[in-house]
Amino acid sequence: MIDPFEVASIPKVFFGAGIRSNLDTIIPSFGNKILFVIGQSSLKNSGVWDEIRKKMDELNVNYFQISVAGEPSPSLIDSYATKYREQSLDIIISIGGGSVIDAGKAISAMIPHEDSITNYLEGVGSKKPDGKKIPFIALPTTSGTGSEATKNAVISQVGENGFKKSLRHDNYIPNIAIVDPELAISCPPSITAACGMDAFTQLYESYVSTKANPMMDALSYSGIDHMKDKIIPACTNAQEDIEVRAGLAYGSLMSGITLANAGLGVVHGFASSIGGLYEIPHGVVCGTLLAEAVKMNIKKLNSMGKEGVMSLRKHAKLGALLSDSDDNAEKDISYYLELLIYTLENWTNKLKLERLSTYGINEGDVNMIVEKTGLKNNPVSLTPEDMKEILKNRL
Amino acid sequence: MIDPFEVASIPKVFFGAGIRSNLDTIIPSFGNKILFVIGQSSLKNSGVWDEIRKKMDELNVNYFQISVAGEPSPSLIDSYATKYREQSLDIIISIGGGSVIDAGKAISAMIPHEDSITNYLEGVGSKKPDGKKIPFIALPTTSGTGSEATKNAVISQVGENGFKKSLRHDNYIPNIAIVDPELAISCPPSITAACGMDAFTQLYESYVSTKANPMMDALSYSGIDHMKDKIIPACTNAQEDIEVRAGLAYGSLMSGITLANAGLGVVHGFASSIGGLYEIPHGVVCGTLLAEAVKMNIKKLNSMGKEGVMSLRKHAKLGALLSDSDDNAEKDISYYLELLIYTLENWTNKLKLERLSTYGINEGDVNMIVEKTGLKNNPVSLTPEDMKEILKNRL
Repeated sequence: MIDPFEVASIPKVFFGAGIRSNLDTIIPSFGNKILFVIGQSSLKNSGVWDEIRKKMDELNVNYFQISVAGEPSPSLIDSYATKYREQSLDIIISIGGGSVIDAGKAISAMIPHEDSITNYLEGVGSKKPDGKKIPFIALPTTSGTGSEATKNAVISQVGENGFKKSLRHDNYIPNIAIVDPELAISCPPSITAACGMDAFTQLYESYVSTKANPMMDALSYSGIDHMKDKIIPACTNAQEDIEVRAGLAYGSLMSGITLANAGLGVVHGFASSIGGLYEIPHGVVCGTLLAEAVKMNIKKLNSMGKEGVMSLRKHAKLGALLSDSDDNAEKDISYYLELLIYTLENWTNKLKLERLSTYGINEGDVNMIVEKTGLKNNPVSLTPEDMKEILKNRL
Repeated sequence: MIDPFEVASIPKVFFGAGIRSNLDTIIPSFGNKILFVIGQSSLKNSGVWDEIRKKMDELNVNYFQISVAGEPSPSLIDSYATKYREQSLDIIISIGGGSVIDAGKAISAMIPHEDSITNYLEGVGSKKPDGKKIPFIALPTTSGTGSEATKNAVISQVGENGFKKSLRHDNYIPNIAIVDPELAISCPPSITAACGMDAFTQLYESYVSTKANPMMDALSYSGIDHMKDKIIPACTNAQEDIEVRAGLAYGSLMSGITLANAGLGVVHGFASSIGGLYEIPHGVVCGTLLAEAVKMNIKKLNSMGKEGVMSLRKHAKLGALLSDSDDNAEKDISYYLELLIYTLENWTNKLKLERLSTYGINEGDVNMIVEKTGLKNNPVSLTPEDMKEILKNRL
């Protein structure tokens, strides 16, 4: 039986190598006053920013440009929203990683509101976002967060009273996602690995989520199918291979769509709590914890008897997919579950995913982290002890 | 390699048994002046129309209601657009089969334009639709056309100079698709069969389309997976089984999304030409021709050598899926191709799909039909002789 489900709008998508050239026709359809949000340097170093600027001059449009470093804070969003509120922008275009896209998304949402974004953040403020915004286009340059397809912008305040919370509304899904794998070609191995594992974690967590539905299952399975053989080569011997980059970019796009509509699990629970407490890249938290979290989920599901079977079957299907095995063969389900864990542990090693202690997190921090960690839509309930075990194995 | 692709917006979706109750909250978010477009009788007979009317009275909204019989003609759309142009409607809601949804979609698009829809129809008029419209919500009561998720409305003029052409624009995708399988429970077997085969044909044709892309492949495969075991029971011994109806409704919804973004093939080429020439239900044309068209596609692909292999593999994957076989086993690809044809021929017989001659089409009409038939995005090129063979086998 198909249980009732909802799918929020999915952005209009342009996907493919070189597809950013479509900006020529897309921009004039919105107007001629543009705010570009870009990162600190990579876009400039790669020559893409020069290419875009030249295009804007040819199109004869007015544009502003701001650069964002790191994950956007409330004060950064507030100051840019104030600065550009009176400019009657027709469109905001982010070209960058997840932080750059989230910054553009949040600025586009806050320009129509005079107060601080803090008032609208989940779990922080008391106001509900109303969905008003300046039209927004996202061009990802990393294959990771899937923010080009999600309805939320993650805003971070680091420190003791730090948080990592979302500004969220269905209308905040970008109007258009332009996913051009060429933009990720120069992304270095460590960032490619962290981002890729973030995307992969999102695909896994939405596939086995308690909010999963057949439509999102199809897209997350497809995302995993297209990125599974590309994640290692993209970080090792095929960094400039456009086919490899396209697989990751597609997986990342699918992960944004599926997380927005089917939710996430405990790994993203950890990413949220740890991200608010320490300066550690989001993708590193996801990547380093994934294999351990999957192992724990499978262990707990196995202990549930009949109730765990349906989710175990989904886990086994992923194990078969990741290892190019045939899940219809007459092998025991546990065979595929082991394959899934084995493959993820293998990736963890091959991608040299850093342990949490590299970022100063040690055994004394575990209790505090677990207290602040939610399970989101994890397929199985975990006790604080279970969660501590996941963390301790990756300190 | 993933070739460049585009995905137009996908509607916001509410899916599930009883989900129509969400109208309570959805309608007030648009306003309080509504035009309902419904069919001739089934909605009234089933009591659903009374239920909706009661709900509207409770919500204290103003509503108009029109009933549409059969496929909408240009003059029908023009007259209703004129009649409701001055009413400042907040929303148009179609509850019915594909024709009812297409009528509502076309009226919503033509209210902001004073001239005839004929000017905007593909291959008929010379004007391009601009996408302006009254917000539109679709609630399908048959599982067939997928119109709840498509960007076109099919408008028919029957007769010698008849046509069956589309009003099409990305913005015409319904704002919201509310897919409640309960609404199809009372759909009689012959209509369920015709509609179901229309949806299935759409899923097949977009899956093997020359415009196919991985994202739409995932959704069409998922649609086929969920409807394959439901189509015979829905028309025979399980007509009122909500699980069975949900499978068909889901397949139909996916087929609308995939046809809108990946296109269709020769069966829908025939449906367009034959539909303009004869009074024959769209789903009957699709259902009766599908197995023959698939047989011809496979024959032609087989004759192409290496160039046909990729599409043949996709066909084989469907053969394995339809017969619950394992396409990874060490069987020859031709084994699965035969399974695909066998299954579809079996359905044709079990569903008692009528032959074209039942509707007065005979051998003397074949040349004229083929002349007017386009291949759309069929996976392989067919000669007029190939197309005649498909038709003749189903006269």
